Amino acid sequence: MPHTAEHRDTTDPLRDYRDRFLPAGDDVIAYLDGNSLGRPPKAALEKIQYLVGQQWAGRLIRGWAEGWVDLPTRLGDRLGEAVLGAAPGQVVLGESTSVWLYKVLRAAMAMRPDRREIVTDRRNFPTDRYLVEGIAAELGGEVRWVDDVSEVPGVLGPRTAVVTLSHVDYWSARIADLPGITRQAHEAGALVVWDLCHSAGVLPLSLDAHGVDFAVGCTYKFLCGGPGAPAFAYVRRDHQGAARQPIWGWFGRRDLFEMAQGYEGQPDVRGMLSGTPPVVGLAGVEAGVELVAEAGIGRIREKAIALTGYAVQLFDDWLAPLGFELGSPRDAAVRGGHVTIRHPGARELAPKLIEAGVLIDFRAPDGIRLGLSPLSTGFAELRDAMDVLRRTLS
Amino acid sequence: MPHTAEHRDTTDPLRDYRDRFLPAGDDVIAYLDGNSLGRPPKAALEKIQYLVGQQWAGRLIRGWAEGWVDLPTRLGDRLGEAVLGAAPGQVVLGESTSVWLYKVLRAAMAMRPDRREIVTDRRNFPTDRYLVEGIAAELGGEVRWVDDVSEVPGVLGPRTAVVTLSHVDYWSARIADLPGITRQAHEAGALVVWDLCHSAGVLPLSLDAHGVDFAVGCTYKFLCGGPGAPAFAYVRRDHQGAARQPIWGWFGRRDLFEMAQGYEGQPDVRGMLSGTPPVVGLAGVEAGVELVAEAGIGRIREKAIALTGYAVQLFDDWLAPLGFELGSPRDAAVRGGHVTIRHPGARELAPKLIEAGVLIDFRAPDGIRLGLSPLSTGFAELRDAMDVLRRTLS
Repeated sequence: MPHTAEHRDTTDPLRDYRDRFLPAGDDVIAYLDGNSLGRPPKAALEKIQYLVGQQWAGRLIRGWAEGWVDLPTRLGDRLGEAVLGAAPGQVVLGESTSVWLYKVLRAAMAMRPDRREIVTDRRNFPTDRYLVEGIAAELGGEVRWVDDVSEVPGVLGPRTAVVTLSHVDYWSARIADLPGITRQAHEAGALVVWDLCHSAGVLPLSLDAHGVDFAVGCTYKFLCGGPGAPAFAYVRRDHQGAARQPIWGWFGRRDLFEMAQGYEGQPDVRGMLSGTPPVVGLAGVEAGVELVAEAGIGRIREKAIALTGYAVQLFDDWLAPLGFELGSPRDAAVRGGHVTIRHPGARELAPKLIEAGVLIDFRAPDGIRLGLSPLSTGFAELRDAMDVLRRTLS
Repeated sequence: MPHTAEHRDTTDPLRDYRDRFLPAGDDVIAYLDGNSLGRPPKAALEKIQYLVGQQWAGRLIRGWAEGWVDLPTRLGDRLGEAVLGAAPGQVVLGESTSVWLYKVLRAAMAMRPDRREIVTDRRNFPTDRYLVEGIAAELGGEVRWVDDVSEVPGVLGPRTAVVTLSHVDYWSARIADLPGITRQAHEAGALVVWDLCHSAGVLPLSLDAHGVDFAVGCTYKFLCGGPGAPAFAYVRRDHQGAARQPIWGWFGRRDLFEMAQGYEGQPDVRGMLSGTPPVVGLAGVEAGVELVAEAGIGRIREKAIALTGYAVQLFDDWLAPLGFELGSPRDAAVRGGHVTIRHPGARELAPKLIEAGVLIDFRAPDGIRLGLSPLSTGFAELRDAMDVLRRTLS
C-alpha cells in the first residue's frame, strides 16, 4: 500500500523547516510557486529588521566600513560553498540576473574575439533569449538557435564563442547535461555561461569541478531571498584576469574609495561589480542562503525528488484520466524542483486554481507549473492541491 | 545679535520631521553624512516590515499582479512629480546609478551616431568618470575632459554627442548651471545626461521645463531610501521611441509575461528596464520619497540654505582662524546640501571626529564634508559638531 501524504510528512527529515517560514495568508491552501517566488524565512524578516532598525539607523554610514562593502563577495563565498560548489573568491551578488547575464556574456564574448556565434535554445527563459539577441545585435555577432538543448553538441564548432543555457528548464524542469555540454563546448574552444535560476538551492552544483566558465542566477526562487532580490554571478578564477565587463562603475575599481582618475578594474571577481551594493536586499538573501546551508543541499535534493515523484504519482492516478499530459521528465535524475502538467484548458484553469487557494503558475501555451520548494512544501499540501486541481476540472 | 542654534531649531518649520526618523546610535553626537547615506525614516522600517511580513509572506506570488510589476514606474511617477519636476511616464526605478548611467549613456550615444565625443569633467564623481571611459572605449568614442564644469560650453561643437555632468558636485556642492548647459548642448546638437545624486531630494528640479534629455540619480542620500537602494532614471518623453538601451532583459519587453520569441522593447520608459524589479529595496525608497513629498521640496531647499549658511558662519567664526579653508561656494544660490571644509590635516582629523561621534566624510585630498540633510539635521546638532571639530583641532 502506498504511503499516505501524512506518513510522508511525518517521516520527512526536513519537516521542521516548514516552521522556519512566515505564515502564508489564510486563503492559501497550497503554495506551489516557490520556484517563482520562495516564501520568506522568518530569519529574513529578522535580518531585515535588524539591518534597518539597528545597522542603518544606529551605525549609519559606518555600516559600509563595518561589513557592507564586502557583503557582495562575503555572501558570494557563502553561496559558493553551500550551494554552487565554488571555492571562495568566485561569486558576487548584486544587480539582477539580466544585468549579470549581460555582463558575463559580454565578458565571455570579449575573450573569444575571433568567434561571433552564441549558441542557445528557443526554450530558454525569455530574458536569456532577449539578452543574447541584444548582444549579438550590438557586437555584430550571430545567435545560433537550437530548438532543444539536446541539439547543442551538434552545432558546436570553430565559430562558437559562447554557449549559454539554463541548467534546469523553467518550463519542463528538465536538467541539462551541464558537465557534458561544458566539456563539449570547451573541446570546441568555446566558453559556457550557465543560468542557474531554477537550480540554485534545489539541487547540488559543482561549478568548480565541472569547469564551468561563468554562471548567473537569481536568489528569489529556491533561495527565498525576496521579490526581486539581488542575483549572483560566478566567474571561474582562471578567467578573472581576462574577463572584463563593460559597466565600469566605482565598485568594480581597485581602491574604490581613493576615487582616483582612470578606471582600473579589480583583478579578482569584484571587477564584475559596478554600482553600490543593494544592502537591504542582500540581508534577505543572507537569510535564505543560511537556511539552505543549514538544511544541506543533499537532503534538499532528496526531498525534491520525493516531492516531484509524489506529484507524478498523483498525476498518474488522478489527472492523466482527465486528459492531462505530463510536461516534465518521469526520470527523477533529469527532473529539477518542479513538475509541469499540460492541458488544453490550462489558461482558463489556472485563475480558478488561484482563486481556490492553490497558487501555481500558468506557463503558455498549456502548462500548469507546480513548484515544490523542499524546505517549505509539504506532502499533504501537495496532495490537497492536486485534489483541488482534479475537482476543479471535473 | 545672531540667532542661537536653539532659536533656529525652535523656529524651523521642518523641526517636527526630525522625529520621523529612527534614532541614531547613542554614540552619535551629530550625523553630518546624510548626503552619503540618509537616515532611515520610521516609515521605511514599517513599509519594509509590511512588505516582507504581509505582502511577500501572505500574498506571495500574487504580489506581482497586485502592484509589484508596476512599482518601478508608479514610484517613478511619484518621484517625478514630487522631486524631479517630471510629468508621469518618464521616470523608472531599479538597478544602481552606475547601471542606469551605462544604459542612458549608451542610449544617448546611439541617438547621435555621427558624433563620438562625450564631454565630462575631471571633478565628476568617480563612477561617472569610469563609465564614460568604458563607454568611449567600447564604442571607439572619445572623452573630452574638462577640468571644471565652467569650461564645458567652450568645448561643445559638431563632434559632441553627449554632455554628462553632476548637477551638484559631490566634493564642493557647487550647483552646475543645468538650464544653461542643457540649452548650450542642444544648440550644439548634443544630448545631456545629468547625474542628480546630490540634488534629488534637497533642491527643486524642473527636468521637463529645462528640456533635460536623460537623468539618473540614487535614492540613498537625501531621499533616505537605504544603503544601496534602487536608483532612478529619467528619459524625456520625446526620446522614448528612439532611446534604446543595450540590456534587453524581460522587464523591458512588451507583454513580458507572454514570454514570446524575439525582443520588442516597450515603446515607453519601461523599455529602460531589464531584470526583475528589486521590490524590497523599493519599499524603502517609497518611504523616503513620501516623506520628501510631504515636507515639500521648497521648504526643504529653504532649510538647506539656512543650514549650509549657518555652517559657513560657524566656519568663519571658529574654523577659518585655525587654518581651514572653505571648499564650497559662499553664494547659497550655487550651493547644494553640503559644505566642504579644507585642511591639510583632514585625512588624520576625520577618523578622530568619527571616533568622537561626529559622523562626516573625508574626501581626498583635504576635504571634510559636512552633509546637512534638511529633514533630519538640526541647527544645534550642527553647532555641536562644529564645536567638536574646532576643539579636536586646537
